[in-house]
Parts: sequence; C-alpha cells; structure tokens
Amino acid sequence: MIDTVQSVRSGDIVVSLLLTQDRIAMDWDACFAERVQRMGASEIRELLKLLDRPQIISFAGGIPDPALFPVEVFAEAYQGVLGDTCLSGRALQYSVTEGYGPLRSWLAAHMAQLGVPCHEDNILVTSGSQQGLDLLGRVFLSDRSVALVTEPTYLGALQAFNVYKPRYVALVPEELADGVVPRAVPGARGGLAYVVADFANPTGERLSEAARTALLELCEARDIPLIEDAAYEAIRFGGQRVPACLTLDVRRKGSIDAACTLYCGTFSKVLSPGLRVGWICGPRDAIRRITLAKQAADLHVATINQMVMLRVAEQVYESQAARISTVYARRCRALLTAIDAHMPAGVSSTRPEGGMFTWVTMPPQVDADDLLVEALREQAIAFVPGRPFSATGGQKNSLRLNFSLHAEDQLNEGIARLAGLIARTHAKPAQRPA
Amino acid sequence: MIDTVQSVRSGDIVVSLLLTQDRIAMDWDACFAERVQRMGASEIRELLKLLDRPQIISFAGGIPDPALFPVEVFAEAYQGVLGDTCLSGRALQYSVTEGYGPLRSWLAAHMAQLGVPCHEDNILVTSGSQQGLDLLGRVFLSDRSVALVTEPTYLGALQAFNVYKPRYVALVPEELADGVVPRAVPGARGGLAYVVADFANPTGERLSEAARTALLELCEARDIPLIEDAAYEAIRFGGQRVPACLTLDVRRKGSIDAACTLYCGTFSKVLSPGLRVGWICGPRDAIRRITLAKQAADLHVATINQMVMLRVAEQVYESQAARISTVYARRCRALLTAIDAHMPAGVSSTRPEGGMFTWVTMPPQVDADDLLVEALREQAIAFVPGRPFSATGGQKNSLRLNFSLHAEDQLNEGIARLAGLIARTHAKPAQRPA
Repeated sequence: MIDTVQSVRSGDIVVSLLLTQDRIAMDWDACFAERVQRMGASEIRELLKLLDRPQIISFAGGIPDPALFPVEVFAEAYQGVLGDTCLSGRALQYSVTEGYGPLRSWLAAHMAQLGVPCHEDNILVTSGSQQGLDLLGRVFLSDRSVALVTEPTYLGALQAFNVYKPRYVALVPEELADGVVPRAVPGARGGLAYVVADFANPTGERLSEAARTALLELCEARDIPLIEDAAYEAIRFGGQRVPACLTLDVRRKGSIDAACTLYCGTFSKVLSPGLRVGWICGPRDAIRRITLAKQAADLHVATINQMVMLRVAEQVYESQAARISTVYARRCRALLTAIDAHMPAGVSSTRPEGGMFTWVTMPPQVDADDLLVEALREQAIAFVPGRPFSATGGQKNSLRLNFSLHAEDQLNEGIARLAGLIARTHAKPAQRPA
Repeated sequence: MIDTVQSVRSGDIVVSLLLTQDRIAMDWDACFAERVQRMGASEIRELLKLLDRPQIISFAGGIPDPALFPVEVFAEAYQGVLGDTCLSGRALQYSVTEGYGPLRSWLAAHMAQLGVPCHEDNILVTSGSQQGLDLLGRVFLSDRSVALVTEPTYLGALQAFNVYKPRYVALVPEELADGVVPRAVPGARGGLAYVVADFANPTGERLSEAARTALLELCEARDIPLIEDAAYEAIRFGGQRVPACLTLDVRRKGSIDAACTLYCGTFSKVLSPGLRVGWICGPRDAIRRITLAKQAADLHVATINQMVMLRVAEQVYESQAARISTVYARRCRALLTAIDAHMPAGVSSTRPEGGMFTWVTMPPQVDADDLLVEALREQAIAFVPGRPFSATGGQKNSLRLNFSLHAEDQLNEGIARLAGLIARTHAKPAQRPA
C-alpha cells in the first residue's frame, strides 16, 4: 500500500490510494457536474485506511479511542429497544425527518444546560455534524456567495461547502475583537460564517468570549448566518468554560428564534461516531428550511440509532464526557511534553485545553506534504499536513496531530521519530535529540 | 391536527401541518440560496405524521408493514455484533465512505444473482436509496442540465433532483421501444435519465424488456447516465422476471465498468427502512466519484447498521422477500377487487405485479388535491394526490394508493369510503355502491 505513495505528491496520497488504473469505458468526467471537480478526497477519511498497518503510529485520524466506547451500554440499549414490542416496530420503521421526538427533547434540555433555552422545534437530528455542514452549505450558499472561515479551518467543512462553490473570505475572530473586520462583498447574495469555537479542528484552540461577541456583532450587522461547529465542546481539560456563540447570541436577542447562530452538535466524539447521530440547534424558521433540505437528501437519520442514542445519552453522556476528557487530557499533556523534548528549534505547537488535536507549525522551508511521504515511508508515522485545512492554499509548513488514539508512550515514541525526521532532513539542526 | 388543514389547498397540506405562525426575527428567506425555493415538503413524509390518528385508513405512506419486520433476527444481529469483542469497537467507530467491506461483498454477490457480475468496488453503500438519488443528482446535474423522467415519477426523486435545478424532459420508455425519442437538448451539459423499472413508485407498473433496451440505446447514443431505482424489485407477485436495466446493459457491454447504468438498491422494503441502508451499483469510475460526493455529505452510513444488515441479509433476505411478496400480493388483489367493486365509472387503476402501489386515474374534472382534503376531513382516508409525482404540473386527477400497510378488510373498507366520496361529490353518478 505504501509503495503506491512513493511517486506522488503527498497532497494526493489519499486519492492515489483509492485510484486504480482501470480503463475508462464511458467518459464519466464529461458527465460530472462542475461541482464534482471541486471535491477533494478527505485526507482524514482516506488515511483511516492506513491505520491497519501494525507498526504505524498515526496522528492522522480524528477518531475517538474505541477502547473508551461504552459498548455494554449500547448493547443493552439496542436490546432494550428491540426487546420492547411497543418500540421495536417503530425502531425499524421510517420516521419523520426532524428526528425522534424524545431525542429532540433530550437535546433541547441539553442545549438549555449550555445556556440555550429552546424547544424541540429548534432541533434537527442529522447524520453526524458533517451532514449538518452539508445541509447548511446547501441552504445558505449559492455560486460565489461568501463563506467566512478561519485560517486554518476544518477540512470537512471546506469539502462540504466546496460543493456549493462559495468564495472564501478569511475570518480572524480574535482580530474582530480588536475592530479588524474583513472586507465583505457588497451585493453578495447568501453566505455564511463558520467557526469551530471550542478546541477547534485542526488547532485545538478556542475563541475568547470577546472574539465570539465580535463575531456575532459582525454577523448581526450583515445578516450572515453563523455556523458554530461544536463537535469538540464536551472534551474539555479543565479551565473556565467560554459560553457557546449560540449561548451569547440568545443572551443578546432574548430568544433562540431571534438568533443568527446555527449550532452543529454531535454524539460522535463523546459516545460513538458509528451510529451517525448529530444535531443542529437554531431558530425554528431556519430549522424548518434545513429539514426540507434533509428530507430531499436522505429522509431521516436511522430510527433505531436515534432511539438507542437517547437511552445511552440519558445514562452516560455526562460520565462519558468526563471520562474521555480525563484520558485525552493526559494524552495531550504527553504529546506536548514530547514535542517540547524532541522537536528541533523553529517548530512550535498550540497548547489545547480540550478536543483531540494540536497544530504544529514548522519553519517556512519545511513542506508538510513532503514530510508526510517521508514519515509514512521511513518512520511509519502518519499525520495530516496543513494544506487541506486552508481555504486559500496556505499552511504548507503546518501539520495536525491527533492525540486521542494512542497511549502516552506511543505518543512519545511517535513524536521522537517524527522530530528526528524533521531535524535530519528539513530543519536547521539547532538542537538534536540526545 | 386536521383542523389546520381545512382552510388550505391540499397540495400544501403537509407543509401547513408543519408551519407555525411564529414571528420571523431574522430575515431567513433572504439568506437561503435560490435552490431552497425549489424544495417542496414531501407529501409522503409529512403525511406519515397523520398515521397516528386511530380511525384513519391511510393509503398514503410508502412504508412496509412493521408486523412483517424480522425483529428477532435484528435483535440477535445487534447483540452478536456488540457482543463480539473483535467487532464491537469497529461497529461503534468511524468507517470508510465506500461502506463495510463484507457488506459490499454480499451486495456484489447479490447483484451477480441479478445477472450483474461485479466486484465490491462497484458498490457504494448509501443511507437508503433516497441518498443514492441525491448523490447522483449532485454529481450529474448542473443548472439547466436535462433530467429525463417518466410522467408520473417518484416524487422523492424530483425532490432530490430539484436541488440541482435541472430541466425536466418527459421520458416515455414504452414509446422509445416504438422509436419515439424525446427531443434532447443540443449542447446541454451533464444530465441523467431516471426510471423505476420494476413496480414503480407511484404506478406499480414495470417496463418491458423492449422499453429497457430502447432506453439503454438512447442513453448510450447520447452519453446519458441512466439511474435505475430498484427499490421495489424484490417485491414481486409472480410472473416472469424482466432483467434489470443494469443487467441488460452489462450483457450489451460485456462488463459493468463499461455500463452507463447506475442501479440504486435498498434494504428498506424487504428488511427494514429504519436502519437506512441502501446501495448504488455501477461502473467503478462512477462509484469512485460518487463516493467523494458522499464523503462530503455525511462521511459514511452508520457502521453498526451496515454490519447488522449484512448478518440479517445473510440469514433472511430471500425468505423475507418471499414472505412480504406473498402478503402484499394478497393485499394488492384485495385492493384491486375493492376498486372494481366500489369505484364509480370513469375511475381506472393500474394492475401491479409487484411493489406497494397502485395508481388511480379519475375523470378529468376530479381534482385529487381537493379530494384529499375532503377524504381526510370526512372519511379519515389518506392518499397521495398525483400532482407531486409530476415534473410538469400534471396528474391532477390521479392519486397513489399504497396497499402494504393494511389488512384486506381494511383496504376494502377504505376503498368503499373513498369511492363513495368520489361518487357523491365529483364523478357523474353512472354507478353507485348498493
């Protein structure tokens, strides 16, 4: 598998792993709509395929540690739903697009705990938060409408939005708080702003309350819907909680139905990604429109999984969030310690207070795409290079490291190998491992 | 619930059941992309919400009889997957977009049984066949590209395609076989043809082999991808099997990778719609591109549901298909008998040899939208009026009747009530029930 990688630019690694050399019998390319040309394979998803290699230490995935899944609780919940004659027929049947009522009620109560008093009409259940991003792109983006995104930002959001051909404008929320506003496009139709406010993918950082407020002011002033991707919100390593953008928005407006924020949540990080259950919380006018978009896209989220996720969430959401936060915090500390110990001068990293990722910036002459090819081939190390997280083709000397999947000694070993490679082949050897 | 229906045109019934009268705080409509204006609520999905009314006899849904779900087999499968320590972590984890390998292998073997020798690379697992339609619209349709569809056609396909703003052209496959070809659009970019070849939704009819062959010849000559929606293929009441369009296509070309047909299958009708597992089978070049579209849309189908569906399909797919076919055949006969006995002159219906639906055509002066309002209010009868199945605003005097959900005496009672209403209020009373 790795052999096929050698001759290609690493930015295309993942695609090349998929591509085979079959002859093209029909001219499919001529049939595909222009938007297909803008879809890239997700480096994250494709790199998952490398994880089976036994000696690999992968910092690439964005996946939770399966050893922490509450398997027993899920098994009991499936058995409970299918063993109940009042529920089993319903669990296996079609259901309404909005989602399973009792799950939407639970989610409304969950959002209220985050400072967002709301009703189940403010909730749409989605197939993970990725589908939330696709649906929001679908309803808000037209050709050339503006998408305000941070630099870097979540590559899955770029993939979802690219389909709808927006024009990206760089958003720097912390500068917004200082009064630096991006030049918006006069007369542009539609559009959205997108942030991962807490423990972002890919940087692990979070926005200050001042930045969130400044962002809301911008969105209010220009009637721009704000998409708040909250996938990592519940994985927090301590420290003060910063209110969600939606929380601040509701406080400003007095009601969620007057808000401009659409909050994308998911059970994928805390409970399980394998059931594909997430949600959008926002003003009911918007939720109603997004529901129509979902109906055309795939009717509804798997009924049985919604019923099971409700049971599991009721039992263990809080304890599971605390459990994974404790484990990931330990791993994050180990990763940062290893980076401090092994990385050569000129390499810096973010200091996450939650989530699953840290973001490493290398000296400008280091190309993370090239480094990935070498790291895979020579060191059996995987990570995601920075470029696909950039809407503007930047971030070439950056990379994303995931710390949720390996034990501390593995993280240290992986960083030692990667740091040695960087020091030997790329960076000026200001400092070498002993 | 029914009260809110009284004052509106029945074409909007379903939307009106959803809509509330909240004030609009933000001007959401100004934010929505133009494509949103083209999405209609699915009358089918929304009418599902009426099914809870105790005295209702609904011919509206396209849903299987939940009494026929193999609940025990599903319960054992979930328990088996989650009780196996080698499988449970994987079942709850992210997985690759293409789908669970062993399920794709089973589906490849299943397609081979239908005369389509293929490999798992020819299979993409989707969230039901509805997602297959959305993804195919996404990759093949650009603004104003041509979508060839029958009249009437499946309304969920129209909803899925509408998002991508095609120009619809009427396709009459049986006329194609007689040499009548629709005038195609010179210079049009992209496009597709769409048929439900077997026991169509909404008519219950199937295409002759000659019509399928003529359709393939048209698509080959003009490089048009043919979307074959096979949702009802396995529900057959006897009679000779007509080869699938994809089967004929592969026979013509010698290899699936040279075919122009994309076959959308689903487990929803035979096993369960509540797990949301379907598939697309086609040339691997196309499958690879559609996989990228799915990745951006929602990453992948719920992992655990794919593993469970494989186990259930291995055990009971064939026996379950035979079982539901027997039951639905009996119900279809009862429905047709009731129509013959009760309906006034000028009302005709199709004679399905499979599937879940029959299509009723009334005299031209009868408006099925109006009839639905009256039927719901006065007779507690639901059906889907013909209009939403038309890409061109026709079919106003038609309606779709589902026969999968009720026992024979209920079907007879429902038709008696509906026929009485039609005879009393709309049709010329050429014949009355005794």
